[in-house]
Amino acid sequence: MPEARDEPLIERLAVIGVGLIGSSILQAARAANAARVLVATDLSEKVRKRVIELQIADEVATDAATAVKVADLVIVCVPVGQMDAAAGAFAGSLKKGAIVSDVGSVKSAIVAAMQPKLPPHAHLIPAHPVAGTEHSGPDAGFAELFDNRWCIVTPPADADKAAAEKVIAFWHALGSNVEIMDPQHHDLVLAITSHLPHLIAYNIVGTASDLEEFLRAEVIKFSAGGFRDFTRIAASDPTMWRDVFLHNKDAVLEMLGRFNEDLASLAKAIRGGKGEELFELFTRTRAVRRSIIEIGQETAEPDFGRRRKKNEPVVPLARPYASD
Amino acid sequence: MPEARDEPLIERLAVIGVGLIGSSILQAARAANAARVLVATDLSEKVRKRVIELQIADEVATDAATAVKVADLVIVCVPVGQMDAAAGAFAGSLKKGAIVSDVGSVKSAIVAAMQPKLPPHAHLIPAHPVAGTEHSGPDAGFAELFDNRWCIVTPPADADKAAAEKVIAFWHALGSNVEIMDPQHHDLVLAITSHLPHLIAYNIVGTASDLEEFLRAEVIKFSAGGFRDFTRIAASDPTMWRDVFLHNKDAVLEMLGRFNEDLASLAKAIRGGKGEELFELFTRTRAVRRSIIEIGQETAEPDFGRRRKKNEPVVPLARPYASD
Repeated sequence: MPEARDEPLIERLAVIGVGLIGSSILQAARAANAARVLVATDLSEKVRKRVIELQIADEVATDAATAVKVADLVIVCVPVGQMDAAAGAFAGSLKKGAIVSDVGSVKSAIVAAMQPKLPPHAHLIPAHPVAGTEHSGPDAGFAELFDNRWCIVTPPADADKAAAEKVIAFWHALGSNVEIMDPQHHDLVLAITSHLPHLIAYNIVGTASDLEEFLRAEVIKFSAGGFRDFTRIAASDPTMWRDVFLHNKDAVLEMLGRFNEDLASLAKAIRGGKGEELFELFTRTRAVRRSIIEIGQETAEPDFGRRRKKNEPVVPLARPYASD
Repeated sequence: MPEARDEPLIERLAVIGVGLIGSSILQAARAANAARVLVATDLSEKVRKRVIELQIADEVATDAATAVKVADLVIVCVPVGQMDAAAGAFAGSLKKGAIVSDVGSVKSAIVAAMQPKLPPHAHLIPAHPVAGTEHSGPDAGFAELFDNRWCIVTPPADADKAAAEKVIAFWHALGSNVEIMDPQHHDLVLAITSHLPHLIAYNIVGTASDLEEFLRAEVIKFSAGGFRDFTRIAASDPTMWRDVFLHNKDAVLEMLGRFNEDLASLAKAIRGGKGEELFELFTRTRAVRRSIIEIGQETAEPDFGRRRKKNEPVVPLARPYASD
């Protein structure tokens, strides 16, 4: 994370919804001294109590309308399907010039849902930090979550420039790299980098859990052969992901269509014993991982560093040894 | 890993093929004092030289026939498609009572390929350690790879009992848990726990790398949304995996068929806006991960421990907070 700021960027930050992301924003904002006063609220009383116990906010409000009063920046961290209800709940309490942002994984649907609820004196600047873990709830948050991760900011065409700059500066303060995109393009990019991978992971774990009883226990037991990787993504928050798929339907189904076509060819290559075709694909895919590691968006450690022992060297991802 | 043995279990161990697995076996066998003399060979001169530099074997033979001479246990660690050629190369040099094993990810095809090549005075006891990383080559190996992982041993119906016991004891010495299975059942279980996950991962990374130029760069950039997880598996050794798919075709295509049916229903649920159906699946899949963590086959750390910071607590994978 960057050094903590000498002077806060925001006077009063309100976080609406304290799950993994809301909790991480509060902790990161405090570590970075990005806001002078941190206000939090959540629909769940249990979560509000937990936020008090964790001491990650300066104030915990009982409802969103109270939380946003005199806030300069309001970040809505609720599932995509609850964004419009949340906006409706606090819109009437926003101060003049307040900036409203969010962290939703889809953007077009959120702009469409929230914009009509907000008063003209507030500025909507949607954002999406591309970061997370498979855990959820306030206990899962941590200050370094956004460190060197991308945050995609999607200001509407007529957005207030100063408000957009403020949101960008806020995410920089939390350690993120910031990219500006229009909402439709964001939804297409995320459909392939995030939504389709989640869909596939949920699906394969579902297929395995539907197996005959005698096979199912063995799937759990021998999952280290590859399957367990998928279970991490498929352990992500069910409400969040239900909403993502329902609110980015077209882009997800478009990318799924491409995936299915490719899978049909791959199955045909296996059935027909086309070894060269398989080898060519499997070599090409290895290069994609190298690129991701090279730009610092993934660890180079084998097995994600999952089982690395103290003295084990980190070896680079090599091209396979050629027979000579 | 277990304590090193006082007396070696095997007098002379020959490892044929020194990739990730062969290298790890040599290192684990030495750490565990599982064999008195470690002999290694590889078709590639470059690999043989590297094994000498790494000092992970006592002897490096120039060919398999030389390597297996007077060996008590021969473990063939070559891609599945090269098993019969390897067996053919050393079969004539096996001493009476020698045990031949392997580490292949498919078993029926290997038994069928190797058994006819071997002399009646040798014992074939196939095995499959369910362990690995996305890296390959002798440098990628490490002694702890098999620690608390399963090794599936598939002795033929008429196998020599003492020989099978020896192979089982060898894998226990290396830190593995051992399961006995028949080869057909192994191939079905691994089709779902390992082969299908690899197929899906290779396919989605392939789909992404076929995207229009302007999208492709963004896939790399924003891969932390889920996609990068798949690239790890899709960075696995291309030769090994080509051979796995070609040699376990029926079971892989059977499991792929089930996966495709489920994916079609899931797409239909998204298209039809069936939120409850999605939520039900996404909740069920979360439980599968909990089971895998509970039996110690996966780390409980968020994000595989990939970005865990020094002071960050390891939180359990909680059920989502219910709104109350």
